[in-house]
Amino acid sequence: MDLKQNIRSIPNWPIKGVIFRDLTTLMQDPNAFRYSCDIFYDRYKDKNLDKMVGIDARGFVFGAVLAYRLGIGFVPVRKKGKLPHKTIEQSYSLEYGEGILEMHEDAVTPGEKVVIVDDLIATGGTAGATVKLVKQLGADLLECAFVVELPDLKGREQILGCPVFSITEFEGE
Amino acid sequence: MDLKQNIRSIPNWPIKGVIFRDLTTLMQDPNAFRYSCDIFYDRYKDKNLDKMVGIDARGFVFGAVLAYRLGIGFVPVRKKGKLPHKTIEQSYSLEYGEGILEMHEDAVTPGEKVVIVDDLIATGGTAGATVKLVKQLGADLLECAFVVELPDLKGREQILGCPVFSITEFEGE
Repeated sequence: MDLKQNIRSIPNWPIKGVIFRDLTTLMQDPNAFRYSCDIFYDRYKDKNLDKMVGIDARGFVFGAVLAYRLGIGFVPVRKKGKLPHKTIEQSYSLEYGEGILEMHEDAVTPGEKVVIVDDLIATGGTAGATVKLVKQLGADLLECAFVVELPDLKGREQILGCPVFSITEFEGE
Repeated sequence: MDLKQNIRSIPNWPIKGVIFRDLTTLMQDPNAFRYSCDIFYDRYKDKNLDKMVGIDARGFVFGAVLAYRLGIGFVPVRKKGKLPHKTIEQSYSLEYGEGILEMHEDAVTPGEKVVIVDDLIATGGTAGATVKLVKQLGADLLECAFVVELPDLKGREQILGCPVFSITEFEGE
């Protein structure tokens, strides 16, 4: 299945010059959604993971499915101000704008084996910040996983030292 | 299983006088997370649903798992400004603050059978707005589903005419 057929491209959103890759069309298609989740599941089913970490907010969609399917816990990393308990935080920058991500300080414990998941990696700002949060808590980070990668934006450079897996990519478009 | 044991209560958050029920502790516990998802799954497995609609952002966690498990599509309803394609919108009010929710206008089609899901119903503001969005698009709304209900806050009154299902509740606390 070519997942790209299920991803809607929106020119000049949220700002001029950016082509936004909209995965809501993938999520609302039962076959494409299941297919993408199952690729992740097959990749991690024998890895003895303890937690799946999803990045606010589309990462929750894939992260929650994987946590359920793998029989492990799901941990949300959130934009600042959304988590009610004690948190650690990291700032990040994006193609457009910047912000702060937070994680509950008891969300993972030292040595727990985790994967970070989001729908898409562009410049890698939020992924890089999430890697720092997870490592700060002492977790054993296997890799970061994305449905879509935009290699032109060199997001991998923001998460050096952590393997990156992506199902599909949009390059030079 | 008493899911309440897996829900963290945080007094005076996000404002004084509110006891926030934090479901991140439930999500990060594999057994509690699976148990709650499976209650929803058992309830809807024979209902021939077409889409599961999740409310931004914790509703994505349970909604995505259900969509995957049921083999149907997942639709995110989002805070204003997050969805890139053509949307319809509804304003809502909460215990603390107010806002606007949006839904892609092609996210559900007339006659599709859907359930709306979120982690918790308090005053019912976001749920009520989501019901209006789903009905505006002509979907056949079976009910709204929540892991937790706070009946003291009378959220059901915001979604009259739509059945409400909740797994557990915190009352008079």
